[in-house]
Amino acid sequence: MMTAGPPPTIAWIGNASTGHLRLLDQTALPTQIEFVLCQKVETVCEAIRSLRVRGAPAIGVAAAYGAVVGSQTALDQTPIRFTERLNEVLDQLAASRPTAVNLFWAVERMRQVGRTLLGMPPAEQIERLLQEARQIEHEDRDMCTAIALAGAPLLAKCEGVLTHCNTGALATAGEGTALAVIFAAHAAGAKFTVYADETRPLLQGARLTAWELLQRNIPTRLICDSMAGWVMKERRVQAVIVGADRITSRGDAANKIGTYSLSILAKAHDIPFYVAAPSSTFDFSLVDGDHIPIEQRVATEITHPLGRQAAPPECPVYNPAFDVAPATHITALITERGVISPVNADEIARVLRPAQAATPIA
Amino acid sequence: MMTAGPPPTIAWIGNASTGHLRLLDQTALPTQIEFVLCQKVETVCEAIRSLRVRGAPAIGVAAAYGAVVGSQTALDQTPIRFTERLNEVLDQLAASRPTAVNLFWAVERMRQVGRTLLGMPPAEQIERLLQEARQIEHEDRDMCTAIALAGAPLLAKCEGVLTHCNTGALATAGEGTALAVIFAAHAAGAKFTVYADETRPLLQGARLTAWELLQRNIPTRLICDSMAGWVMKERRVQAVIVGADRITSRGDAANKIGTYSLSILAKAHDIPFYVAAPSSTFDFSLVDGDHIPIEQRVATEITHPLGRQAAPPECPVYNPAFDVAPATHITALITERGVISPVNADEIARVLRPAQAATPIA
Repeated sequence: MMTAGPPPTIAWIGNASTGHLRLLDQTALPTQIEFVLCQKVETVCEAIRSLRVRGAPAIGVAAAYGAVVGSQTALDQTPIRFTERLNEVLDQLAASRPTAVNLFWAVERMRQVGRTLLGMPPAEQIERLLQEARQIEHEDRDMCTAIALAGAPLLAKCEGVLTHCNTGALATAGEGTALAVIFAAHAAGAKFTVYADETRPLLQGARLTAWELLQRNIPTRLICDSMAGWVMKERRVQAVIVGADRITSRGDAANKIGTYSLSILAKAHDIPFYVAAPSSTFDFSLVDGDHIPIEQRVATEITHPLGRQAAPPECPVYNPAFDVAPATHITALITERGVISPVNADEIARVLRPAQAATPIA
Repeated sequence: MMTAGPPPTIAWIGNASTGHLRLLDQTALPTQIEFVLCQKVETVCEAIRSLRVRGAPAIGVAAAYGAVVGSQTALDQTPIRFTERLNEVLDQLAASRPTAVNLFWAVERMRQVGRTLLGMPPAEQIERLLQEARQIEHEDRDMCTAIALAGAPLLAKCEGVLTHCNTGALATAGEGTALAVIFAAHAAGAKFTVYADETRPLLQGARLTAWELLQRNIPTRLICDSMAGWVMKERRVQAVIVGADRITSRGDAANKIGTYSLSILAKAHDIPFYVAAPSSTFDFSLVDGDHIPIEQRVATEITHPLGRQAAPPECPVYNPAFDVAPATHITALITERGVISPVNADEIARVLRPAQAATPIA
């Protein structure tokens, strides 16, 4: 499906006991193609914290492989010590970023697998852990494909589609979430132009989304975030589609800062507002989006765009990395198990919970 | 009133026949204090086009002085030739930027003065032209003071105020428009924090507004434009106040791109939305904001923030420099002749037109 796309976002290189995780360094894109070779869990955590790997699903997959990398240091120790090390490593990974729930989902899944391996020789345990991480990656890829197919018909008749941040191949192990829907609709013959928000402060839209779209020859117009409302007013777009980092049981969706405003603006212009995310993004322990922890990031992201000083020295900032679009403003949630609309607790439970209840990690 | 503020935005240096216009180069702020010495009208036009001088009122004042600089080349010619030169220069200045009406207002005012000087010796004409430019500057300063006093009570009880772009001393010959209201309210004892939108693509909020606020020790938080909606949702601000580049007879207000979205977001959160501008910003030839010409600017402003490449090479952009907040979303217009609320054609005419009709330039 990916023809002229970027190199793989996430790859495991080598075997379970001596191999390592290779991440495409997304902070260097699109001007440079660089990789981070993670041979320690600390390198994985740093890569997650500094957004070298980002996108909720990709963070989950990276954390799963990070558990393998981190556990390798206890391979020559007792099975009990190996398990202790695995759990230490998982705690470190879980502390790397607070908002995206896929991270915790992947960490818990690796922890559960670890529990089934208690007392086994470390060399066997590490094989099984790598197998699970690979499984998470494969499932993520399949989820992307299923989301793309489920969502594509919603964009079929659009002349313009607006998206925010990056939700493509760089944000997942597959083709993406919201951006995969765009790719699939385009592949199916839809003739829209994608208006890509640049997505300050870290410019994932300019650096990553525009790059992915242009590599696929999809008509693209990069805009500043502040232009989205005017683009709607001028009727240039007939749909907004974004990803999510955490979705509550009633459908409030945390996503990159700016998403909340887009949901208000879309509603004010009667434009459908879609959120595309795998079921691993849902957090059924929360009902109300006000309870989702919102990561606050450093001032320099705002004061120094691309590392160059814009604001006066010591200028105070407010820099929330995410906000929450309320369920009432979301036209449909697009998941690998189908489109959920209207967005409310009952519909979400009907589509997602039966299957989730059947899996060991629910 | 300005204690620790920036150096003068606009200054005339020397006498009428050999003097020149000195502009503070706002593209270099806040990291460098540089000046542009304008000894030719082309330098003034370039400074306006490239936003070395910007802000609707400041552009008007710069254009008035630009008419003097440009006419100096015909000082040794016949009175008729001098007048021809003046009109050529005014046409050049009027073509420098399309949206802010204060530019055309100042150009027309200088043209009218020129008409009263027909046949006079060029040396006398240039004296009178400089006198008129100085008068425009002084009136602008007085207008700023009057706007500040009229608007300050509206912000007295706010804990937070949101503003966009730069509307301070750098945007005018005086203390500013919207930002002058903020300065005056702060000076009168109001205890708010100003949330300053960074204002992509050219970051006037980060570079200029944050700088002006911090120089005056006003509590400030710089945010990305996409955060404004979330700041409203979190009830951090109780008012939004912005400037304007052109206001129609019914009150639709063109201003820096992003203003339209802010007006929608403010309405959705029941937050008052104020527009502060002098009467020279009103264009009574237009009723509907849809007819205001919107300047489109070059792609590199978006693809290369602060000159550094963010987007892929040749990435197409959409880069409107302005948008239009509809009158229905504006709580009040704050002018030097008083606060206009509700915002509609009758109220605007009642407050502004009688006095305007009495001036020769109406």
